[in-house]
Amino acid sequence: MSGAEFLAVDWGTTNRRVYAIAADGRVLATERDDRGIMAIGRGQFADEAAAIRARFGELPMLCAGMVGSVGGWVEAAYRPCPTGLDDLADALTWIEPERTAIVPGVCFVDATRADVMRGEEVQLLGAVAAGIAPGDALLCQPGTHCKWAQMAGGRIASFRTTMTGELFSHLKKHSLLADFMTGEVADGAAFRDGVATAANRTLLGDLFGARASVLTGRRDRGEIAAYVSGLLIGSDVREQAVGAGTEVYLLADPALGTLYSAAIEASGGTAVLVDSHDAFVAGITRLWRLVR
Amino acid sequence: MSGAEFLAVDWGTTNRRVYAIAADGRVLATERDDRGIMAIGRGQFADEAAAIRARFGELPMLCAGMVGSVGGWVEAAYRPCPTGLDDLADALTWIEPERTAIVPGVCFVDATRADVMRGEEVQLLGAVAAGIAPGDALLCQPGTHCKWAQMAGGRIASFRTTMTGELFSHLKKHSLLADFMTGEVADGAAFRDGVATAANRTLLGDLFGARASVLTGRRDRGEIAAYVSGLLIGSDVREQAVGAGTEVYLLADPALGTLYSAAIEASGGTAVLVDSHDAFVAGITRLWRLVR
Repeated sequence: MSGAEFLAVDWGTTNRRVYAIAADGRVLATERDDRGIMAIGRGQFADEAAAIRARFGELPMLCAGMVGSVGGWVEAAYRPCPTGLDDLADALTWIEPERTAIVPGVCFVDATRADVMRGEEVQLLGAVAAGIAPGDALLCQPGTHCKWAQMAGGRIASFRTTMTGELFSHLKKHSLLADFMTGEVADGAAFRDGVATAANRTLLGDLFGARASVLTGRRDRGEIAAYVSGLLIGSDVREQAVGAGTEVYLLADPALGTLYSAAIEASGGTAVLVDSHDAFVAGITRLWRLVR
Repeated sequence: MSGAEFLAVDWGTTNRRVYAIAADGRVLATERDDRGIMAIGRGQFADEAAAIRARFGELPMLCAGMVGSVGGWVEAAYRPCPTGLDDLADALTWIEPERTAIVPGVCFVDATRADVMRGEEVQLLGAVAAGIAPGDALLCQPGTHCKWAQMAGGRIASFRTTMTGELFSHLKKHSLLADFMTGEVADGAAFRDGVATAANRTLLGDLFGARASVLTGRRDRGEIAAYVSGLLIGSDVREQAVGAGTEVYLLADPALGTLYSAAIEASGGTAVLVDSHDAFVAGITRLWRLVR
């Protein structure tokens, strides 16, 4: 790749995204595919990396995400909070010196709980490093496993992962509600009702209530997917104690970003949308500069 | 069946239980099988009833449970709360006059929510009618869909269904936690930790935290099923505002009864275990006496 200085691979469980990046941080080429770690056999990662280089150039490669987990290429130990880009740079797992490295994940452990992330740390720290989110702020990355990170002094001070997206998916696929969850999920009256109900913090009852509301004629079947999404996202926002005056920086795609913004604002907070790809590129470029 | 006066069928989604009952309420014979409504084709219910009578005798038959739902034999409309055995007796759906009837389900609807039950009403009202639970008390039937019923003056005044057991099952079968949920679920330190954590009312985060606690070495993999059970049952108990002085009558099998008792007592309440089969037989026998 003419002009590219290094390759960055955001290598998750299901998907993978490769970026060829110039010295100044510009993305010269990018490609997304479904070659996440689940699709790659044990011992096949070096071949995968060679195939990436065959397409993008014989360049140094920084990999982040689940590629550093037990089920990935090589396990890269978690860095404890608080952690910054300099800590991550010091703790890269080099597969080939100066050529191929894996970014460590981050863990949070205190007397009462533990949490882990892999891949999100590059986005979070990148957003702050690029100035698209403040260094002392609450950041949120909605998704299958939603991350809520408290940044302090430009570092990840603590974070919490919620199973919001995964639970929605199980309910839609496998549950008693599955037959009712065929409608569109969008910000609207049904979604907002779900968010408002979540304030009661009675999720286990409200989920069954969604079914009962159809059987008793209180709600149309087509509204249930949006209502359940509102219940879950509203519960997620409530668990983080988002309230009047809370500002949340959302690293999200437009669809989830809109839903989380609505739930945050219904709780009295304010939401600022941030481009998560820009944040990843900013973070991985700064990591590269620290180690090149 | 010599001496039996009528047949009672507790006909659920998955399972079915038939009782041949004497005039004085004694059970002369009983049989449990997997001929729930899911196993029976549309239009096949009359044949099923004939097969039951071929085994138990040509007797009148009262059926309760999901057999009265849209997917069952004949839809039996819900009776609204408050409701007692006399209301149910007045609202039986007779398939053959004086010979075969379906007990209606019960619904609760107010300005903020709706809920439904089918089958549990016979147990709840039977427990009170038989004097094994007081007429003004909080009753709980743990299970796939846990019912919490507030009885008043011997009637079901209101109730709430929680998706506790169903959610546990989805997490165990399909979730990111599935690989970790292979251990035994019993009342012990891990279950109690889950119950205690549920007091924070941060279920979406605590579920993911169960995984992180293994990855960070805080908890053994074998404890996760019991811990998640504690999280869910503890959340369920918290949602009902069970606290100091709350007395709960549990209609449960011994395994779930032990877990719910522990969670109720950890929240400051007291639990009284009631035999749910006795309660069903008492309820259906009184219904029979009201209509014979």
